[in-house]
Amino acid sequence: MFTYPLDDHVELRPLAPEQARALYELIDDCRDWLRQWLPWVDSVKEVSDSTNFIKGALAQGAENGGLTAGIWVREELAGIISYHEIDWNNRSVGIGYWLGKPYQGQGLMSTACRVFTDHALMRMGLNRVEIRCATANRRSRAIPERLGYVLEGIVREAEKLPQGYVNHAVYGMIRSDWLRLR
Amino acid sequence: MFTYPLDDHVELRPLAPEQARALYELIDDCRDWLRQWLPWVDSVKEVSDSTNFIKGALAQGAENGGLTAGIWVREELAGIISYHEIDWNNRSVGIGYWLGKPYQGQGLMSTACRVFTDHALMRMGLNRVEIRCATANRRSRAIPERLGYVLEGIVREAEKLPQGYVNHAVYGMIRSDWLRLR
Amino acid sequence: MFTYPLDDHVELRPLAPEQARALYELIDDCRDWLRQWLPWVDSVKEVSDSTNFIKGALAQGAENGGLTAGIWVREELAGIISYHEIDWNNRSVGIGYWLGKPYQGQGLMSTACRVFTDHALMRMGLNRVEIRCATANRRSRAIPERLGYVLEGIVREAEKLPQGYVNHAVYGMIRSDWLRLR
Amino acid sequence: MFTYPLDDHVELRPLAPEQARALYELIDDCRDWLRQWLPWVDSVKEVSDSTNFIKGALAQGAENGGLTAGIWVREELAGIISYHEIDWNNRSVGIGYWLGKPYQGQGLMSTACRVFTDHALMRMGLNRVEIRCATANRRSRAIPERLGYVLEGIVREAEKLPQGYVNHAVYGMIRSDWLRLR
Amino acid sequence: MFTYPLDDHVELRPLAPEQARALYELIDDCRDWLRQWLPWVDSVKEVSDSTNFIKGALAQGAENGGLTAGIWVREELAGIISYHEIDWNNRSVGIGYWLGKPYQGQGLMSTACRVFTDHALMRMGLNRVEIRCATANRRSRAIPERLGYVLEGIVREAEKLPQGYVNHAVYGMIRSDWLRLR
Amino acid sequence: MFTYPLDDHVELRPLAPEQARALYELIDDCRDWLRQWLPWVDSVKEVSDSTNFIKGALAQGAENGGLTAGIWVREELAGIISYHEIDWNNRSVGIGYWLGKPYQGQGLMSTACRVFTDHALMRMGLNRVEIRCATANRRSRAIPERLGYVLEGIVREAEKLPQGYVNHAVYGMIRSDWLRLR
Repeated sequence: MFTYPLDDHVELRPLAPEQARALYELIDDCRDWLRQWLPWVDSVKEVSDSTNFIKGALAQGAENGGLTAGIWVREELAGIISYHEIDWNNRSVGIGYWLGKPYQGQGLMSTACRVFTDHALMRMGLNRVEIRCATANRRSRAIPERLGYVLEGIVREAEKLPQGYVNHAVYGMIRSDWLRLR
Repeated sequence: MFTYPLDDHVELRPLAPEQARALYELIDDCRDWLRQWLPWVDSVKEVSDSTNFIKGALAQGAENGGLTAGIWVREELAGIISYHEIDWNNRSVGIGYWLGKPYQGQGLMSTACRVFTDHALMRMGLNRVEIRCATANRRSRAIPERLGYVLEGIVREAEKLPQGYVNHAVYGMIRSDWLRLR
Repeated sequence: MFTYPLDDHVELRPLAPEQARALYELIDDCRDWLRQWLPWVDSVKEVSDSTNFIKGALAQGAENGGLTAGIWVREELAGIISYHEIDWNNRSVGIGYWLGKPYQGQGLMSTACRVFTDHALMRMGLNRVEIRCATANRRSRAIPERLGYVLEGIVREAEKLPQGYVNHAVYGMIRSDWLRLR
Repeated sequence: MFTYPLDDHVELRPLAPEQARALYELIDDCRDWLRQWLPWVDSVKEVSDSTNFIKGALAQGAENGGLTAGIWVREELAGIISYHEIDWNNRSVGIGYWLGKPYQGQGLMSTACRVFTDHALMRMGLNRVEIRCATANRRSRAIPERLGYVLEGIVREAEKLPQGYVNHAVYGMIRSDWLRLR
Repeated sequence: MFTYPLDDHVELRPLAPEQARALYELIDDCRDWLRQWLPWVDSVKEVSDSTNFIKGALAQGAENGGLTAGIWVREELAGIISYHEIDWNNRSVGIGYWLGKPYQGQGLMSTACRVFTDHALMRMGLNRVEIRCATANRRSRAIPERLGYVLEGIVREAEKLPQGYVNHAVYGMIRSDWLRLR
Repeated sequence: MFTYPLDDHVELRPLAPEQARALYELIDDCRDWLRQWLPWVDSVKEVSDSTNFIKGALAQGAENGGLTAGIWVREELAGIISYHEIDWNNRSVGIGYWLGKPYQGQGLMSTACRVFTDHALMRMGLNRVEIRCATANRRSRAIPERLGYVLEGIVREAEKLPQGYVNHAVYGMIRSDWLRLR
């Protein structure tokens, strides 16, 4: 029911159980593409796995105040963006995202990520947003870089993918920066 | 972040923890008005009670697929509309709602209720929507009546309010009717 | 151990785990009969399903104050009667029941239902008892009618059975009526 | 609703939430008497403590298959008898009981305890029933002795009462004995 | 990481998840020997069963203050000793233990059991330690007897083993005795 | 009972409930000192807060495989070192630590931290250990630097202390490095 329009035919929608099939099909259609950087792709084997993911994300949001949204392009699900578990003590949150292969290269995720960054720092009362990308994942790193996030470090062997450990580039945006940049 | 616009300056927004203060103040501003028909008004004593209500509603939605929305008029919270616990076995759900006193008489809730009815029957795959009002609550009964719900019965002494037991008028809308009416 | 005698060879007994086999066999012996109006029949596939049902009913009773009883005729289990989840705020409860085919037509359930109605309204401090039957289930509707319940409405497409949606006849008994009728 | 008659005016009834006041008043009326051997007496300070005890006992019974009963004499609650947590692996259970002061010396508890012993060994499929009494609690020890339980040992400093540690006399009844004795 | 040295090449170590394989292999290597007196041997079918046992023991310890330790001989796991659920109200605890066949007859368990008895009575603030052995399990009974525990009773048919019910010899050590004996 | 000796009079011991008073007193004795860098100091108001912390740490360890240890100097508790929640998917863990004021400057924590690093990478099968310190906390930063950890980044405004946001220096040790360095 609810949306956040990004432009005339692109909108964010909060994840909902009735979207499980669309989510499953998006993943299933570009498994090879997604598998490059996402460790969970092979564990999504049927629609009910996506239903469970959605229910888990909603429950975490209910507990913690987070959000997970789908990016919808002309009524097709193109990708996902979400807040990771919010650290309310330190007023900090991470953002994660991925996009199906056909939807790459159109600036969709940069726009979505700008919205999520702004909402966290301007509406939710948070002070810091963090984005972590595998160092070799150029496409993913371009997003925080385009939005003015600062590269704060390279955390070595931070994530274990099927092909081995990868380093993480850690990008941070703090509220005082965002007030200048937005 | 997310909205469903009803007209130029009215929109539905999913309930979120950062709205707890607005919700508390709306209730606190029209306690006498709300107390007429809502049994829970006196148990809302401080903002944290509204925070807990919001968290509970989100958790139930995560579990069950339901939704609770605020009706916002020019950035002010005017009232609440929500699905009660969904009966997925029987594809049936109830809708509950209330509006602060200053927002009465503008057709806001009829519009919101049309959206919730349509979403349940056309998007969520449900077959029946039920609305129950105290028989003497004319204002509340006008809403399903305006939308074409059928009065299916009068359930006696169905609810205990501080002033005593009240009868419930039970209104039902089924999918086959809605397909004709919408 | 405990019983409530209805006559010389009929008694109510609280459901207990050691009755799981008797319950399973009663269901298994008249599946076709029960399937007409009860949506859960096919999900009872072995004795452990009945054990789980009994444990669930006892846990709900412990939580909520409800009761589930078997109707025993000469040491044979004939059927089940129970309070649905009690609404303590509104002092209201529903009653559900079913009887195996060989035990029909002897007035067993009317007697049991009178006991459950009286216990709810005279002992448990409740104010309203509700019974809902599919409108076409004449046998089931005869029970509240015989006891003086009032038909308060016909709720359309309230329940989904394998054969399709059915309407519910809603019968209510309130305490002030029962004091006159009993 | 349910009972197990012991004689014309004495009966066992399963514990139920609506009995909380009767239970509280029985305890409150003979606190000094009960405090001699029961460590929990001073923690029962108001009716809601008895409500919580009853809910806990029902929940444990739902989980475990146990039972707690009140002994009712001419509609007055006289005392409590219950199965402790059942050890289904070893088919063994303990019985605990206490009686208000005015109801002592009439053989009530011996009769109730015979019923609970018989039900455990003959109906529930258990093999062993154990009763433990403080060695100096002559009145309590008389009950298993009268029923033919065997004194199997004296466990030293098994229980901490306000006045200090007491030894436990351990009595056991096994199924093969009971088949001869009952 | 942590140990309690018993002598130059024997030590106690708190159970930890990374020991699951060692535990499984010890059990698997002497199933026939262990099956004589331990009812759970056949339910340990793969390493994950031992992992689950370890997690359960750690969770119970976290909840309750108990401990489970492995006895390690020259870096090989020889057996297990643990506190059963602690009864803090009565300041009482049971000790259970078993040893793989190759490690019998060297006094290992007597030494470990002395440490566990002393720790319970001198460090944890407990007043009573209880050890129960099947009466025919001479080897096991020798341990409390060697440490000065008192045989307090023979509980009949206390445990159900695959071969049938066995009686338990109940041994008790109380703090005042231990202060003299240690 | 269990220890890991660091030298003749210093040892690590796993946290246990009976140490709650020692832990509370250590915190209470140097509140001003600890408050500089630890956000939780003022929430520790009585011994029961330390008991709850210990129970929580043990429960997390049982769930997750982590460990929390006290550093004991001549039978006095000097400080705490622990694994944060382990990320088993990525084989990564954080280490946190603090020391009471009188125990500073003796190399205690460097030794303890070497043990925890080695145990994680050599025994628990982990691949990465991370230590985060406020950038201005020189004393704390000296520890990973002394052990050869690599400074991987400066995460801005990562933690909210009463005095304001502080940046975190992130230090990482990976298994392949440790194999060379240890």
